[in-house]
Amino acid sequence: MSIDLDILRHSASHILALAVKRLFPGVKLGIGPATDDGFYYDFEVDHAFTPEDLEIIENEMLKIIEENLSFERHDISAEEARDLFASEPYKLELIDQYISEHKDLSYYSLGSDWIDLCAGPHVQSTGDVKAIKLLNLAGAYWKGDSNNKALQRIYGTAFCTAEDLADFLSKREEALKRDHQKLGRKMGLFLTAPAVGQGLPIMTPKGTKIEMILRRWVEDTEEAWGYQQTLTPYLAKSELYKISGHWDHYKENMFILQGYEGDMALRPMTCPFQYMIYLNEAHSYRDLPVRLAETSTLFRNEASGEMHGLTRLRQFTLADAHIICRPDQVEDEFERVLKLILYIMDTLGIKDYWYRFSRCDPENKSGKYIDNPEAWKNTEASLKHILDKIQLEYKEVLDEAAFYGPKLDIQMRNVWGKEDTYFTIQIDFAAAERFDLFYFDENGQKVRPFVIHRSSIGCYERTMAYLIEQYAGKFPLWLSPEQVRILSIADRHSEYCIRVKEQMMNAGIRVTVDQSAEPLKKKIRNAQLDYVNFILVVGDKEMETSSVNVRTRDNKIHGTRPVDDIILDLVQYVNEKRLDV
Amino acid sequence: MSIDLDILRHSASHILALAVKRLFPGVKLGIGPATDDGFYYDFEVDHAFTPEDLEIIENEMLKIIEENLSFERHDISAEEARDLFASEPYKLELIDQYISEHKDLSYYSLGSDWIDLCAGPHVQSTGDVKAIKLLNLAGAYWKGDSNNKALQRIYGTAFCTAEDLADFLSKREEALKRDHQKLGRKMGLFLTAPAVGQGLPIMTPKGTKIEMILRRWVEDTEEAWGYQQTLTPYLAKSELYKISGHWDHYKENMFILQGYEGDMALRPMTCPFQYMIYLNEAHSYRDLPVRLAETSTLFRNEASGEMHGLTRLRQFTLADAHIICRPDQVEDEFERVLKLILYIMDTLGIKDYWYRFSRCDPENKSGKYIDNPEAWKNTEASLKHILDKIQLEYKEVLDEAAFYGPKLDIQMRNVWGKEDTYFTIQIDFAAAERFDLFYFDENGQKVRPFVIHRSSIGCYERTMAYLIEQYAGKFPLWLSPEQVRILSIADRHSEYCIRVKEQMMNAGIRVTVDQSAEPLKKKIRNAQLDYVNFILVVGDKEMETSSVNVRTRDNKIHGTRPVDDIILDLVQYVNEKRLDV
Repeated sequence: MSIDLDILRHSASHILALAVKRLFPGVKLGIGPATDDGFYYDFEVDHAFTPEDLEIIENEMLKIIEENLSFERHDISAEEARDLFASEPYKLELIDQYISEHKDLSYYSLGSDWIDLCAGPHVQSTGDVKAIKLLNLAGAYWKGDSNNKALQRIYGTAFCTAEDLADFLSKREEALKRDHQKLGRKMGLFLTAPAVGQGLPIMTPKGTKIEMILRRWVEDTEEAWGYQQTLTPYLAKSELYKISGHWDHYKENMFILQGYEGDMALRPMTCPFQYMIYLNEAHSYRDLPVRLAETSTLFRNEASGEMHGLTRLRQFTLADAHIICRPDQVEDEFERVLKLILYIMDTLGIKDYWYRFSRCDPENKSGKYIDNPEAWKNTEASLKHILDKIQLEYKEVLDEAAFYGPKLDIQMRNVWGKEDTYFTIQIDFAAAERFDLFYFDENGQKVRPFVIHRSSIGCYERTMAYLIEQYAGKFPLWLSPEQVRILSIADRHSEYCIRVKEQMMNAGIRVTVDQSAEPLKKKIRNAQLDYVNFILVVGDKEMETSSVNVRTRDNKIHGTRPVDDIILDLVQYVNEKRLDV
Repeated sequence: MSIDLDILRHSASHILALAVKRLFPGVKLGIGPATDDGFYYDFEVDHAFTPEDLEIIENEMLKIIEENLSFERHDISAEEARDLFASEPYKLELIDQYISEHKDLSYYSLGSDWIDLCAGPHVQSTGDVKAIKLLNLAGAYWKGDSNNKALQRIYGTAFCTAEDLADFLSKREEALKRDHQKLGRKMGLFLTAPAVGQGLPIMTPKGTKIEMILRRWVEDTEEAWGYQQTLTPYLAKSELYKISGHWDHYKENMFILQGYEGDMALRPMTCPFQYMIYLNEAHSYRDLPVRLAETSTLFRNEASGEMHGLTRLRQFTLADAHIICRPDQVEDEFERVLKLILYIMDTLGIKDYWYRFSRCDPENKSGKYIDNPEAWKNTEASLKHILDKIQLEYKEVLDEAAFYGPKLDIQMRNVWGKEDTYFTIQIDFAAAERFDLFYFDENGQKVRPFVIHRSSIGCYERTMAYLIEQYAGKFPLWLSPEQVRILSIADRHSEYCIRVKEQMMNAGIRVTVDQSAEPLKKKIRNAQLDYVNFILVVGDKEMETSSVNVRTRDNKIHGTRPVDDIILDLVQYVNEKRLDV
């Protein structure tokens, strides 16, 4: 019979608390719930826990499991509870809270020497907890409020079997290795600086190189798919956002520049700016669709706690576009956009994603949606019709729409399993009316067009974060900031190495030379640690034959090749955007 | 004997005023000074002047010149003045002002029927004014203050000879044709929108194409010249600008985001952000110079009246870079930067420029310079030494330095003769100390590097404005947003035209097809008016022989050429960045 993981982990947190109490008798207990991945417990103690302590505490937990102490539940009155937990200030606070909430009080005992205020349920005895592991330490505030005292939190996990635990730990180790926050910094792709501020990453030359390759590729691809690129300003008077509806529905997320021409604001979206281009000339039905794309920098005032790595930022750059089309073109255009996104994901080797049909909250409780129930109903029905017609499987989710219309989102998970939107296609029922966008139909009558908002590669920073994790830093050749490193065996090969480098640079290859005095083995190892795709070794033989000895970062040796040949190969790999080299 | 132009034009403005008074007797007179280019006079009158009125007024002026009325000066008392100008409210205001300034009062009479309050001097008689021309109308406020009444201003010019006037008018006509404000909008390269705000131009797809070609070319060129590109955030906490000195010396020019993490601000320069990248790792003397470049969007809070077209903006994008180098490398690096700028100007066909050595104000009266007289002295001496060593001819100008050091500016004039800085190289004595930038020398000692700030193509918008004016909109092929237009003679050629278009697009050529029902002559004319470089006409003969009939926008016919051949030619012209096609 399998035990419920939440109950198991909650019980493990009690075992953790007892172990800490045994080892640090003066400890005051906070709370210890189960989480998605395991459990934690918060402690107030006059000792800063170290990783070594974790090992000692874990051993004590294993002893408690061996002791097979039984969990027993006891219902108690408020008075009894206050007596029993007189020396635990945080538990006393909880008791008062529960009483005020008219909750029943109970505690669990573990053997004869330990009790914890708890509603349960728990496993029968500590021996049921077969597989545990303490994972890491963190700071935490009592009730998550930074005005309260800082506590120490110990994270752990528990599973029903040792195999399940081993599996979890190996996946976790892999995630830690791939986590773009750690790996991206370690590889020197980006950095953050306290004086600049949170949510404002700085791309180093290496990170910039990857982003620029992606940008140019996406811009060129979009052009080939019938888009025109624009460059529009990053700030505007509040007047513009009042027309667009951002001022009423999105102001909280915006950076406001108070007192400049009344108020100005940094743009959170590109749409109103591209509409100005559409409005600049008259359009006939024959001119549509107009597809305006932009490598568009946007600004959103995320709260301090919400910013994360390259995925949640105060400034980011979106491969944005707005398609202004006739009603009879919406379906085709929607499909074309989806095809473009699929082509981009395919080229990047992205495979794990699913579709989300993001609707509004029909009751609009938050007031964040434009108030037009009729339009919402119609537009959601049209979008649903399109999705069903192209036979897309999707999840339908309420209260995830844009303020101006429903969306099809393409969702993915990062290495930690966290879901996020990476690409999006949105149908806008409000813009044409608000901005007085129109075209002349066959009879010279003014008609309102539809607007599709879409991203192609999404937000460059977020997609880069995904790619760092997907490739664990080992970018395919066409995206790699350092594609080739040439290693000289001795000083006398330096000049030849430089010549080969220049030849390669002229062919557009990103190449460096390591002519340091390190032993060759070390140079090869360094290049592998830097995830350089091709490592070319040069000694006397290679110099004499205008060739190089070719290795790859996976430690495979591909033998000696003429320089001209390897250049042709590399250029072809890059042109084909091969993912396997 | 030649007459002073200022006197001549001032006299012409009196003739203008008399002419208007004769034609519109109720007019009230404002002022009528000479300007750099001519003269104007401001009028309050119950009639909105039209261009047709200008002709009538000009004819009246010619009559007055023919009448050869003499200018006569009369010195008067305050009381006499108030009597004489009792019906001219603006003159009465001036009389009061002059009295309060203890100025002597005088008026000039013109013949017997007209007088104006004036200190002179003037020509002897109206017959001395040989060559006049009224140019245009504008609105103006009394004393330039928008709280005062709106007046109507008539602009004109006058010269000593008819030849000089004709010369001026033809130059003016040419400038009007080239003015990037008019021509850039007419060509649909950019637009502005009142709801967005002043100084925030919106680049259309056409304008964007030109800017993107320039950006990619400059980025690639810089990379080939040893620069690394970066992408850094557009805003930061005030903390960063306090370190850099912008908060103390440049805050008036910045957009401040009040109340976000204390205060944040949009960046007016890239430097402090790129220093964060340098600080992210340790550098040895062998790693220098570090050359960090960025296609960098910047924000400056220009006053309303100062913004102009694409040349003075609130948001602009600079081809920016910072070179962090050892003291012994400064001279070489400075020369390399100058060579890069010269290469860029040469490739763009820019020829009319001069150098300005921009120094600080040694007394620092405005407080806008970092207060370190010793460092200013030394750095200006070093820069002067470099300039003299490379034998550059330059103008030395005080109070034009950056707040952190002296500059070499490359100055040019727009079509109206207005001088501006287009490219710049600056030596910074303050940054290394303020940001604690250092490198380790041969002995492992920390040493302060030098910082060179520079632009290569300058600010993209401003340089584009210059290029629009230089080429009068007729961009050379490699910069042209529409390089080729294919014209079908009849409907049956349409399909072939589309095939040729696709073939050309695959070769990277920017091409459109005109398959409208217009007559061929009209289609050719339209393509010429749009400044399309190559106009390819397709009829039966061309279709049969897989060829096109080639014309250029200068109306030259180059005969029938196989499609493959013309593609090869076009690709070669683009690759060579030829300026003559």
